[in-house]
Amino acid sequence: MVNDTSAPRGGRARPDVDVDALRTILDGEYATIRDLVRTNLVTHASVLEDAEELGIDAFRERVRELVVELAATGQTGMGFPEEYGGGGDIGASIAAFETLAFGDLSVLVKVGVQFGLFGGAILQLGTERHHAAYLPDLITGRLMGCFAMTETGHGSNVQALGTVATYDVDTQEFVLTTHGDAARKDYIGNAARHAELAVVFAQLRVGDRSEGVHAFVVPIRVDGAVAPGVRIEDDGRKMGLNGVDNGRIWFDEVRVPREALLNRFADVSPDGTYESPIENPGRRFFTMLGTLVQGRVSVGGGAINASKVALAIAVKYALRRRQFETASDGEEQLLLDYGMHQRRLLPLLARTYALHFAQDVVRTDLHKVLSGIEDDEQTRRELESRAAGTKALGTWHATRVIQECREACGGAGYLAVNRFAALKADSDIFTTFEGDNHVLLQLVAKGLLTGYASDFEDLDQLGTARFVTGLAVETVIEKTSAHKLLERVRDLLPGGDEWDREAGLLDSEYHLAMLRFREEHLLAGVARRLKRGVEREGGPGAVFSRVQDHVIAVARAHVERLVLEAFVEKLRSVPDGGNKEALGLLCDLFALSSIEADRAWFMEHGRLTVQRSKAITREVNDLCRRVRPIADALVDAWGVPPEMLRSPDLVG
Amino acid sequence: MVNDTSAPRGGRARPDVDVDALRTILDGEYATIRDLVRTNLVTHASVLEDAEELGIDAFRERVRELVVELAATGQTGMGFPEEYGGGGDIGASIAAFETLAFGDLSVLVKVGVQFGLFGGAILQLGTERHHAAYLPDLITGRLMGCFAMTETGHGSNVQALGTVATYDVDTQEFVLTTHGDAARKDYIGNAARHAELAVVFAQLRVGDRSEGVHAFVVPIRVDGAVAPGVRIEDDGRKMGLNGVDNGRIWFDEVRVPREALLNRFADVSPDGTYESPIENPGRRFFTMLGTLVQGRVSVGGGAINASKVALAIAVKYALRRRQFETASDGEEQLLLDYGMHQRRLLPLLARTYALHFAQDVVRTDLHKVLSGIEDDEQTRRELESRAAGTKALGTWHATRVIQECREACGGAGYLAVNRFAALKADSDIFTTFEGDNHVLLQLVAKGLLTGYASDFEDLDQLGTARFVTGLAVETVIEKTSAHKLLERVRDLLPGGDEWDREAGLLDSEYHLAMLRFREEHLLAGVARRLKRGVEREGGPGAVFSRVQDHVIAVARAHVERLVLEAFVEKLRSVPDGGNKEALGLLCDLFALSSIEADRAWFMEHGRLTVQRSKAITREVNDLCRRVRPIADALVDAWGVPPEMLRSPDLVG
Repeated sequence: MVNDTSAPRGGRARPDVDVDALRTILDGEYATIRDLVRTNLVTHASVLEDAEELGIDAFRERVRELVVELAATGQTGMGFPEEYGGGGDIGASIAAFETLAFGDLSVLVKVGVQFGLFGGAILQLGTERHHAAYLPDLITGRLMGCFAMTETGHGSNVQALGTVATYDVDTQEFVLTTHGDAARKDYIGNAARHAELAVVFAQLRVGDRSEGVHAFVVPIRVDGAVAPGVRIEDDGRKMGLNGVDNGRIWFDEVRVPREALLNRFADVSPDGTYESPIENPGRRFFTMLGTLVQGRVSVGGGAINASKVALAIAVKYALRRRQFETASDGEEQLLLDYGMHQRRLLPLLARTYALHFAQDVVRTDLHKVLSGIEDDEQTRRELESRAAGTKALGTWHATRVIQECREACGGAGYLAVNRFAALKADSDIFTTFEGDNHVLLQLVAKGLLTGYASDFEDLDQLGTARFVTGLAVETVIEKTSAHKLLERVRDLLPGGDEWDREAGLLDSEYHLAMLRFREEHLLAGVARRLKRGVEREGGPGAVFSRVQDHVIAVARAHVERLVLEAFVEKLRSVPDGGNKEALGLLCDLFALSSIEADRAWFMEHGRLTVQRSKAITREVNDLCRRVRPIADALVDAWGVPPEMLRSPDLVG
Repeated sequence: MVNDTSAPRGGRARPDVDVDALRTILDGEYATIRDLVRTNLVTHASVLEDAEELGIDAFRERVRELVVELAATGQTGMGFPEEYGGGGDIGASIAAFETLAFGDLSVLVKVGVQFGLFGGAILQLGTERHHAAYLPDLITGRLMGCFAMTETGHGSNVQALGTVATYDVDTQEFVLTTHGDAARKDYIGNAARHAELAVVFAQLRVGDRSEGVHAFVVPIRVDGAVAPGVRIEDDGRKMGLNGVDNGRIWFDEVRVPREALLNRFADVSPDGTYESPIENPGRRFFTMLGTLVQGRVSVGGGAINASKVALAIAVKYALRRRQFETASDGEEQLLLDYGMHQRRLLPLLARTYALHFAQDVVRTDLHKVLSGIEDDEQTRRELESRAAGTKALGTWHATRVIQECREACGGAGYLAVNRFAALKADSDIFTTFEGDNHVLLQLVAKGLLTGYASDFEDLDQLGTARFVTGLAVETVIEKTSAHKLLERVRDLLPGGDEWDREAGLLDSEYHLAMLRFREEHLLAGVARRLKRGVEREGGPGAVFSRVQDHVIAVARAHVERLVLEAFVEKLRSVPDGGNKEALGLLCDLFALSSIEADRAWFMEHGRLTVQRSKAITREVNDLCRRVRPIADALVDAWGVPPEMLRSPDLVG
């Protein structure tokens, strides 16, 4: 339709997709563990019905039992050292978790709580004494635990939490107390029913000094009864995930031995001397928190795979369902032959592929860092930023995809048997837990600003809104020359100022340059606005409030650029043939529909003419038409077991 | 912040909002019935907990009992003639329904099924014999019924349905049969449990002739047992609305007497002669369907009010919850002081006000038409278009608002006690039932295209995708001169071609001109593309598929223009003072954030310069800051009873 489509990826013929080979590409190096999880999902498929039919109490027990059964297959313990009964492969543990997201999400989250959060904290924050004491039993699920970080009064602001652990030198114990109702632990998975132990995050006090947030192992149940000094309340019914027993916990002078401190990064000696290899308290805190990054990587990957379930159902339904006669022969047209229906589903399908490959990158990075293959400060920071960003985009994507797919299946989509009810209700909280998405994107933006300023080493690393307060703002301003940034932006343009008018619309270099330009330009703009704001308008609170939407936009632009790079990079590694052509179409569709969605910004910033903007819209429509004939194969390649789709009347 | 803000509505001072007076404006002429509903909601507030705690069977019974209790107060029967025990006021019945949406939505939908769909069909399609036989008992809820239109195979395409009613002249009966499984009635509220009668839509056959879709009163239960020849299956658990017993119905040679035909618009004489005052079968069908427009008006209004519940909770929470220190005094900042949080909630608040006033207009129009005050063909068509459009925008708005508000309340928003779980799950289907939103917008667009062509009288009026098939496309093309359309567009510009560069950004005339321009330009474009498409590309199916997103865009633009006009019109009638200033801010915020959301289109079509586009974004931010101090008063003015907010920890 447009004249300037220099299609570099072959002609207009329908690509010949080899579904099995494409699945091999998607499953990557973790095909074996993914297939084990698929098999387990099918074996226990009845849990999808149990989620509807059982009451909360019965369903919680069912999910607990199922988690223990899964543990016995080895699928949930991949991330723990082999010496304690684990699989010794962090990457495989994430891949297993991602695949588990094809099924019931209460099971997924219970697995995440037990093995990711609770087990991960013992592993990453504890030392040999904790590992030996707890890992063997928690890996099998005999010992259930919870991760008591979040408090009612401080959702994503962990550094400000109010539970206090005071060292009593006389008894060599820590005394844990909840100060005020805002400091109660809240939404803690496994707390209401099943956990015997809790990893509790509390402000450590030794003598007169407050040493910041540390983690302690605290028994909260003994032989099934709540431990003395501990009070537990059930969070009650939730929108979804009702197979997970979330609860609130208060501590009233609960005593634990000195050895209960998870002491990998700091310890208290018997005589009450605080010691840590990391001198700076802020950095210490963020080092501890940083080891927990796998929670974010897991949730992001789970969300992306939950999207696949919804899209597989909606695409298959749209290839089966006819609605309204428009053809002259009187036969009703298939839903997916309608342009609007293609528009609704196919860019989301392309974005799901893009996010899949972006998740591959973050999982690989996580594996390297946590396995000690590459574990320097810089790599860790990049991982944390990438994990935060992918989690935010992946979980928002899931919310959007599931909603669009439900609507695209009409009234049938509303029946519980057709999966959307559970998918929607269960995945809703993904945008909030493991860090609220907006807070996470602020973290990403802060990392970018920090990267510009040269020696930000002292700046706390996960703090969010606070990065514009006091010293932080001034440092950004001093170290950041807006002029220098704009030069950097110009360097991104591959062929002079006219590059973006002449490049082919289906050229990945063009797509990448556009997304890189947007990111750099937004970043320079934020730095300028922060500087100007503080000069003219005073208080950092007010300045931040005004710049906040811009800050979020920087982070989104950054992460979207990373996602496109991951897709383009992957594409280069795929051998020529139908699958490469198909992935090329998806990559173009993802890139162009992303640019299209933000075309106002590109026009506002001189990188898109009106004519070209309209041409992009036509090209997106054209790409949708080209993807349509292979849509079925593209969703099949995800390998969602048919039993997980259910929906007998929609896909049967 | 911007230089060109010629603020016509007074200075920058915070408007002094009089909450009670504002509520009086919002409640309008139906304050009495709205207050009755509020009182009833509070009386029966425990149903919100029952929705969580009871099993499906018990909750269905609870909802049924509650509906009967509400009926006894007169709140649900306002739309029926006084002689049968009703209130004789259609407008009041819609206002009551809207207000009921503050509470449990199963109750709302059950009321809608019983009194709106079932009762409405008896009233609007039946004649005196049906009224006398059924209205008195159905108004009290003693007689429960259902509205059996939708079939599995044909969701929103009613004209194609497959249930057949054949007239048997020997016995003077109609024989109803479900032909094939796609023709089973599906998602029918009240069918699985409570309905004794069904209004069944079926293809009428008399002799050899098929006379199109007609409605029949069919007993489906006798003394609680399913009637002979009828088969009923429970639709089972749904995403939400589990207090409503939806089901499927099959008919196997079910016989009903000749008088069971709802014969206001067509009848069959004892000897088998078909008669109708409306000769054209298409028009007859759409006249029948048109009388059922109140369902769409009701759902749209209900959705808008459900949005208010979510926004009231989220705004109050954001005025209570502190998160992260940014101010130098170490106190954490209120959520609503964050620019991003204002951006997330306040344009939605403004749009909710806008939709409220748009709903006032459609309710008033409905009242006039159905009360016979103004009931010509043209008025009916306008009503149908407006009802379809407001329903689509109102229900999508609800989905979006509830999601945004849930996320804005973080983890707390996920707990069932805080209302979002039920709001989200229950309202989700609003975008689909009473007509899928995309199908409805196509209907709106078709009306607009029909308006351009002069004598479209014969074109079926509610058909959707079909308006581009065969004759329809050609008629549009013949009758529509693209040149003439463009002239019309130019006439809209108030002051020459430069008008839109000089007008004040806070000038309602500017906002209206922008939205009118967009609508007319899109419409002219669609007509051109249809013409060109058929000339060049052949089959109407393929042409429609390509133009469909453009068609939907026309309809959205049209409805959004109507919404803005309703708001501006309302504003003119409000006496000077703080409330007018506050509504003025909201009207500006609604208009500018709508233009901002589509600023790419305005730039692409020469109606927005880059500078002005950026200025609009700054102005939206500024308006958010000005609305922030009055946000609490603005949500209080909606008069959502505190018991309906629940959320003790969020708004308490």
